[in-house]
Amino acid sequence: MAHDEFAIIEQYFTAIGDSSDDVLLAVGDDAAVVELAPGQQLVISMDTLVGGVHFPVDTNPADIAYKSLAVNLSDLAAMAASPAWFLLSLTLPGNDSRWLSAFASSLRQTADDFKLPLIGGDTCRGELSITVQIAGTVPAGQYVTRQHAKPGDLILVSGELGNAGLGLALKQGRLDLPQDLQTHCLLALNRPQPRLELIPFLREFASAAIDISDGLQGDLAHVLKASHCGAMISRDSIPVNSWIRQQQAYQYALGAGDDYEICCCLPARHRGEIENWNLEHPACRLTVIGEITESGYFLRQGEDLVDLGNAQGYQHFD
Amino acid sequence: MAHDEFAIIEQYFTAIGDSSDDVLLAVGDDAAVVELAPGQQLVISMDTLVGGVHFPVDTNPADIAYKSLAVNLSDLAAMAASPAWFLLSLTLPGNDSRWLSAFASSLRQTADDFKLPLIGGDTCRGELSITVQIAGTVPAGQYVTRQHAKPGDLILVSGELGNAGLGLALKQGRLDLPQDLQTHCLLALNRPQPRLELIPFLREFASAAIDISDGLQGDLAHVLKASHCGAMISRDSIPVNSWIRQQQAYQYALGAGDDYEICCCLPARHRGEIENWNLEHPACRLTVIGEITESGYFLRQGEDLVDLGNAQGYQHFD
Repeated sequence: MAHDEFAIIEQYFTAIGDSSDDVLLAVGDDAAVVELAPGQQLVISMDTLVGGVHFPVDTNPADIAYKSLAVNLSDLAAMAASPAWFLLSLTLPGNDSRWLSAFASSLRQTADDFKLPLIGGDTCRGELSITVQIAGTVPAGQYVTRQHAKPGDLILVSGELGNAGLGLALKQGRLDLPQDLQTHCLLALNRPQPRLELIPFLREFASAAIDISDGLQGDLAHVLKASHCGAMISRDSIPVNSWIRQQQAYQYALGAGDDYEICCCLPARHRGEIENWNLEHPACRLTVIGEITESGYFLRQGEDLVDLGNAQGYQHFD
Repeated sequence: MAHDEFAIIEQYFTAIGDSSDDVLLAVGDDAAVVELAPGQQLVISMDTLVGGVHFPVDTNPADIAYKSLAVNLSDLAAMAASPAWFLLSLTLPGNDSRWLSAFASSLRQTADDFKLPLIGGDTCRGELSITVQIAGTVPAGQYVTRQHAKPGDLILVSGELGNAGLGLALKQGRLDLPQDLQTHCLLALNRPQPRLELIPFLREFASAAIDISDGLQGDLAHVLKASHCGAMISRDSIPVNSWIRQQQAYQYALGAGDDYEICCCLPARHRGEIENWNLEHPACRLTVIGEITESGYFLRQGEDLVDLGNAQGYQHFD
């Protein structure tokens, strides 16, 4: 697709996003050139979305474009890095100009909204697949990793968990939901909000953070492993919608993934900061769901204690 | 493939390449963290190789791993940037541990050889596809683009063109070659040498450069378009092997691509530097193949002048 490729890049993928002064050379050469201010560190992430695996192949191309940026932005938010630019590698089965147009137009809108310039990448022919490589900057030393949670730290999550999983189940006809919840859950699935507003909070207070795109249970386990500690979380503290609470369908909040909320840990002395945050950011509430411990990984569920350290734990007991 | 993914990353893709001091956080978090020295600029490129499109699906996984790095290194060389790190997104149809082992082992060897740390990426399930995002550094302002070729500049290419194209045709049974040439051409196809040794030469002398992975004819056209000028090249000057010369099969050198040699332009006053270069680097010879002109794009072919400005030009006349 040598000839097509250049035409596709020129037609659809030039001048995407607000370009900032530090982008010296963007789409159209062998590579892009970017300059960083001294004292800034660069945070880099790459995610691939494959049609039929990460999304049904008939998903609206505008949603695919939005989500391919949103999931990468969520990775940056989890590291407390401010978005700087992105690259896109797009693999397409054919030259479907309606699909491409809708995809590119949504990509442009999303990149503009997040002030994120597209600086390079490529297109090729093959099964539908989208790889985004994103970079963000952070003042030297202020990035947040999975590695420094400490026993006694509070464990928090942003937003409401399980909605994206419900949206997918609904779309696949695996369950039915009240009408007012349907729109809400499909929006959570197709238009997840990367929690960029949390960046300053994480830089100031968080000891560890992760983006819970693979589900709270598994992603918190990554923090525990990287920080060499344990956790006790409480099922009834997990922020979920009323349907999940009524149906006791907490598996959507714990395991379904695709929520793109942030799970972070912070020393208990900052508890007051959480209240301040919630007063000022009602749309991105932080909820304390438990505490970091020396070892073990448990879920308090009424009178029971479920061992989440066993990978199969939750599914067994629920 | 949430669970498999982490296992695959841990088993196959940690500690790849020599890590340098500026890599603060590599594979295993939401993103990697890298710091740049002041006065350095970052050059970034991303390429995807799709099975069945960029290589036959039964290609040796060791060759695929090698080539996925080599083609990206070639992009950096064309920009005169020194390789710094890479990210890998690997899409695999299944969990074939023999394939993965061979791929990872060759990737590790290649990354070590080029002192190129792997700092992040992901793996997912789907049609075989490999995306590499590579970054390199260059002292501020010393990168070379396609944009500054000037009328009167000499046009040069490195190495010998057409060998990779012959290798592919041979592999596909489309032609036969003398025995001694077979190995040579298959090596050019599977193990292209990124021309990193040219980086200091390009920084010092080149007005423009491009990696001719899509074929000399098309890639030089990109330089002409970006530099707003024309070119006159001479077919008989193009460095090719004796078989291409005897068979007059110059289409392999002009259009087949996959050679990963560098085409660069430089002011004619630096002609002496080319001779010095060739004396010191016999394995990466530079050959003058023509000259940048005000406008038009022509190939001198004996007494004939072929108009390459017409995209179909060369195929028509040859």
